[in-house]
Amino acid sequence: MRNTANETALTPVSGKGQPMKTFAVGSAALLLAAVLTAQAQPSNLEKGARTMQSMNDVRAVAPALEQYGQTLLMDGVWKRPDLSPRDRSIVTLAALIARNQSTDMPYHLDLALDHGIRPGEISEMITHLAFYAGWGNAMTAVAAAKDVFARRKIRADQLPPAAANLLPLDEAAEAQRAAGVEKNFGAVAPGVVQYTSDVLFRDLWLRPGLAPRDRSLVTVSSLIASGQSAQIPYHLNRAMDNGLTRAEAAEVLTHLAFYAGWPNIFSALPVANEVFDKRPAQGAPK
Amino acid sequence: MRNTANETALTPVSGKGQPMKTFAVGSAALLLAAVLTAQAQPSNLEKGARTMQSMNDVRAVAPALEQYGQTLLMDGVWKRPDLSPRDRSIVTLAALIARNQSTDMPYHLDLALDHGIRPGEISEMITHLAFYAGWGNAMTAVAAAKDVFARRKIRADQLPPAAANLLPLDEAAEAQRAAGVEKNFGAVAPGVVQYTSDVLFRDLWLRPGLAPRDRSLVTVSSLIASGQSAQIPYHLNRAMDNGLTRAEAAEVLTHLAFYAGWPNIFSALPVANEVFDKRPAQGAPK
Amino acid sequence: MRNTANETALTPVSGKGQPMKTFAVGSAALLLAAVLTAQAQPSNLEKGARTMQSMNDVRAVAPALEQYGQTLLMDGVWKRPDLSPRDRSIVTLAALIARNQSTDMPYHLDLALDHGIRPGEISEMITHLAFYAGWGNAMTAVAAAKDVFARRKIRADQLPPAAANLLPLDEAAEAQRAAGVEKNFGAVAPGVVQYTSDVLFRDLWLRPGLAPRDRSLVTVSSLIASGQSAQIPYHLNRAMDNGLTRAEAAEVLTHLAFYAGWPNIFSALPVANEVFDKRPAQGAPK
Repeated sequence: MRNTANETALTPVSGKGQPMKTFAVGSAALLLAAVLTAQAQPSNLEKGARTMQSMNDVRAVAPALEQYGQTLLMDGVWKRPDLSPRDRSIVTLAALIARNQSTDMPYHLDLALDHGIRPGEISEMITHLAFYAGWGNAMTAVAAAKDVFARRKIRADQLPPAAANLLPLDEAAEAQRAAGVEKNFGAVAPGVVQYTSDVLFRDLWLRPGLAPRDRSLVTVSSLIASGQSAQIPYHLNRAMDNGLTRAEAAEVLTHLAFYAGWPNIFSALPVANEVFDKRPAQGAPK
Repeated sequence: MRNTANETALTPVSGKGQPMKTFAVGSAALLLAAVLTAQAQPSNLEKGARTMQSMNDVRAVAPALEQYGQTLLMDGVWKRPDLSPRDRSIVTLAALIARNQSTDMPYHLDLALDHGIRPGEISEMITHLAFYAGWGNAMTAVAAAKDVFARRKIRADQLPPAAANLLPLDEAAEAQRAAGVEKNFGAVAPGVVQYTSDVLFRDLWLRPGLAPRDRSLVTVSSLIASGQSAQIPYHLNRAMDNGLTRAEAAEVLTHLAFYAGWPNIFSALPVANEVFDKRPAQGAPK
Repeated sequence: MRNTANETALTPVSGKGQPMKTFAVGSAALLLAAVLTAQAQPSNLEKGARTMQSMNDVRAVAPALEQYGQTLLMDGVWKRPDLSPRDRSIVTLAALIARNQSTDMPYHLDLALDHGIRPGEISEMITHLAFYAGWGNAMTAVAAAKDVFARRKIRADQLPPAAANLLPLDEAAEAQRAAGVEKNFGAVAPGVVQYTSDVLFRDLWLRPGLAPRDRSLVTVSSLIASGQSAQIPYHLNRAMDNGLTRAEAAEVLTHLAFYAGWPNIFSALPVANEVFDKRPAQGAPK
């Protein structure tokens, strides 16, 4: 399987000159499609123009980087099996927000919506990361998403309301988690312990606008992308409890190597290894 | 001396309710001054408009986040006892600068000035963080502060001069610190060791424009906010020697959970725990 | 098979003509516009004006910081022996890109070119850091470099092509490295392991547009600047194998204290110490 995955990922579009041609044809088709399907829709035209501009910018500075971006990333990594394009968009957006990288956000917000992520899910991702990556990161993401939402005419009624009917809480698991944190840190910073229960685990995590498995995927991606190794074990286990498979988790690491940089991934690998080792065999779903 | 510096720095405006009142009075005075000195004063109008716009932006992307921001943060965390609004502004600004988060800087620079932080203190914070967070971070902060200072008509004579009469140095403590660093790293990178003494501890830390306790608060906040756990023990101890109480330190952690993200705080908690444990009981002031 | 896939995937487009032509047209328009609007070299005037503006900005917020910048940094650190201005520019740019600090990039891109770094080397640095610091960081650097390149009329034919004749590989050393990684992480995330061999060590590192010693300097600077201590030993050793002297390495740490902040350097010092200790004496070059 490893070899197959590898082959698919690395086998290029075809002969040497092709990738570029493909890109040019693809772009033309995209623009044409935009014109045909949507009259008023300036958004897709703009988006096509922006993507083109962005490609031109990369080429004007680093032709090799532009080619890596096309053949290795978009035609390679993003098409590997074991993690859907939708999941890859969640992982990428979480990494960009966790790393406060505004430059690439508009492109990946568009791509995420194209991959079927709902505006409301992006809204919840940003809200979630306000707590897991920091308030300022969420504000940077808001600034980028606002423009994309406006351009794509996303309306307020497509977004989850502030007040939501929360998902049911697993009281036993939460009591155990809270007891551990209280024991370790209750005397150090009681405010943190209190907010962790009240706001994070009894509110934020129970908001229905983002599936718990996706919320975990966002959290784990953010932790890996910002080098927070110490917090990975709890959340990687939680993610797998919430339905992330081991193969998917491995692909999250592979995908993030490109978006969070190799060193963050090599720091996460031994931690992930230990988590995988300690879990029951994949056959017995948990 | 340590206690004196501490007292001046820490003596709150007075009882609990006061800071707010002071704030209200300060705001009124500010508005009056604004009306008197500037006829049209677009600055405050602009500021209000910008804050409103910012709220609208958040609501347009994540209504839940906007509500958390209002009820949980501004009406909640910021009003908790044990850390004054002024201190919370110092902590927040330090975190934003340490994390190079330009999006939120204008808002928090205004809030800091509204909370009574002097322009000269902001100037010193940025200068201090050039060394503790990196030169580029300071440049980003300069770009944001320049606009806020210009809008609020802050004049050059309100800023600390480059050349200042330094505070007295605790020669014994500094000799001990320097000896430790020289022993550990003198053979690895003598330049670093030399600059650490000459520029940081015999110059920067002695600049009078920011009280040592506040300088420590800036340093500790920056370390926590950028996940630099290894440097926390020395500087948290120094901060407490400089007058930061344990209750305040706990609130710094609580406040930063929101502005630096939960994972950074959970990495700092065990380190803070150890520092707290090893210090003499709070009753016996140090 | 692995090698085949690798080779095909990475063998770049042969027909370089196409993309370049597009770029050439864009460049021509740009050049024309430049010629039409500005008769005499606006670039240096602009550059001087921008530097002046930037100094004015710093002075308007923090006069002390402006003075530190002039006397301590530009007239001090940058002129220290043991590391050339060219190397210092490589180190500084790597730190800025690794930390995604766009504010200071234009100034330091200009300074790097003034210090004799070729545009093609900057192009390769950005491409290299796409993998070692993350794709988004490279995109931010592209945005800054594009403007600087355009202003300085740097042409496409000054940049390394996507397809390059790779430097020879030290097969024995690479086999050893790959075996270690495969053993440790092959079962955790096979994709990461595969890409590390195929893309990083059998392609990126062998691109001829940046000398291996400089590529190592970029990597080590990026690791130190982003606090990635765990990855420093391998790459600092590799840098010294590639020709970086111990005195230069010490100056890299000293220089980065200013550009990455003191805490990152104090975290790197014990790691560097251990690397230095374990290497053969400087007299016996390796």
